[in-house]
Amino acid sequence: MSLILRPLFEKTSSTYTYLLADMQTVDAVIIDAVDETKQRDIGLIEELGLNLKYILETHVHADHITSSCPLKQHFTQAKIVLGSANAVTCADILLNDGDTLSFGAYTLSAMTTPGHTDGCMSYIVDNQIFTGDALLIRSCGRCDFQGGSAEKLFDSIQKIFTLDDETLVYPAHDYGGRTVSSIWEEKQFNEMIGANVDKQTFIHRVNAMELDLPKKIHVAVPANQVCGAKIMIKTP
Amino acid sequence: MSLILRPLFEKTSSTYTYLLADMQTVDAVIIDAVDETKQRDIGLIEELGLNLKYILETHVHADHITSSCPLKQHFTQAKIVLGSANAVTCADILLNDGDTLSFGAYTLSAMTTPGHTDGCMSYIVDNQIFTGDALLIRSCGRCDFQGGSAEKLFDSIQKIFTLDDETLVYPAHDYGGRTVSSIWEEKQFNEMIGANVDKQTFIHRVNAMELDLPKKIHVAVPANQVCGAKIMIKTP
Repeated sequence: MSLILRPLFEKTSSTYTYLLADMQTVDAVIIDAVDETKQRDIGLIEELGLNLKYILETHVHADHITSSCPLKQHFTQAKIVLGSANAVTCADILLNDGDTLSFGAYTLSAMTTPGHTDGCMSYIVDNQIFTGDALLIRSCGRCDFQGGSAEKLFDSIQKIFTLDDETLVYPAHDYGGRTVSSIWEEKQFNEMIGANVDKQTFIHRVNAMELDLPKKIHVAVPANQVCGAKIMIKTP
Repeated sequence: MSLILRPLFEKTSSTYTYLLADMQTVDAVIIDAVDETKQRDIGLIEELGLNLKYILETHVHADHITSSCPLKQHFTQAKIVLGSANAVTCADILLNDGDTLSFGAYTLSAMTTPGHTDGCMSYIVDNQIFTGDALLIRSCGRCDFQGGSAEKLFDSIQKIFTLDDETLVYPAHDYGGRTVSSIWEEKQFNEMIGANVDKQTFIHRVNAMELDLPKKIHVAVPANQVCGAKIMIKTP
């Protein structure tokens, strides 16, 4: 039991947070933590005696508020990490495509996957990719705000599809209770962007999506641009 | 990618269904499938081209209706499996402690873990145990109906705790968005029944739980005693 991977679910926004740790060195990272569930996550990190090194976001979310700042306030040694294309002032580290971070014996690699937002980043650890809102299970992120671009998203997902078929896909959301997929499955069965879908068809499909704006967008985006710091101030 | 394990979540009852398959032979089993999410599960099994061999229940649930019968109607070769202590007439196979079933290269072993109900069974595959409502993450099942017994549950969890510390624990429910734990963690941090809790203390704690009856109990238990067949008849 060297690498542990703990998917954690937040019901209101159907968001998955991922805690990964090297149990030999107890170095850990957390991806896409949510304000509503920060006490659960802090409790688990403390119980396991982990040294939280990095608090990562796949992107500036529009549907929930991050707990990055409150987590950093609690685990003061931790660094907040986002992709360098994000207009945020609160990050300690801004990653570019191919950059890596280490925790214990493990390496996390960043892959720029813009399209849902212009700053979207996916993270790869061993046989797993954490795709945020770029590639979802049998679906993909929307592209109608925050610099979204269906054209860029198509290219990003093609990049994700260059990974081994066996790579496990852990998205930031699933609204149907699915928890994990694989590159092979998404190539085969993703109706939005499976292997047989060409770029023009994909762009047409994405632009034809008719979706209400996320309920929290006008609160969540500004709050997340400061890594959830406003929340920390409001509810000390 | 030989063994795949897919935890699947049903939001209303916070139930986890588990689909396991040997991707070499495509033989598969499903544990604790739920009526509300049967179309999702049928779709996934069909997409992956699986041969569903066994439809297992950890016990006769009181909080949701199983999709065992509808699944069997769809995958006619599949066998419905429960522990032999359950008063059900719809099972094709009734397992006793230590009995095994195979799917592809994998073996599933049954471990009787009564206490939440008298017929509770846990299932072990490789490094994973599916504990139903016996051992939950940082908690355990209630013991106040369906032949429940805190004394028996204590003994059952001690039996589960004889597994290797690294064994992953996949429960039938989690109400806080946690998806998986390990034997080591539950021994260390389970406040109901960690390694330092003696039998009398545990019995006192369980009997002191003040819980409303599950909302669906009067519908779910009779329906599940016939493996969800009534649902199948009502909504053909």
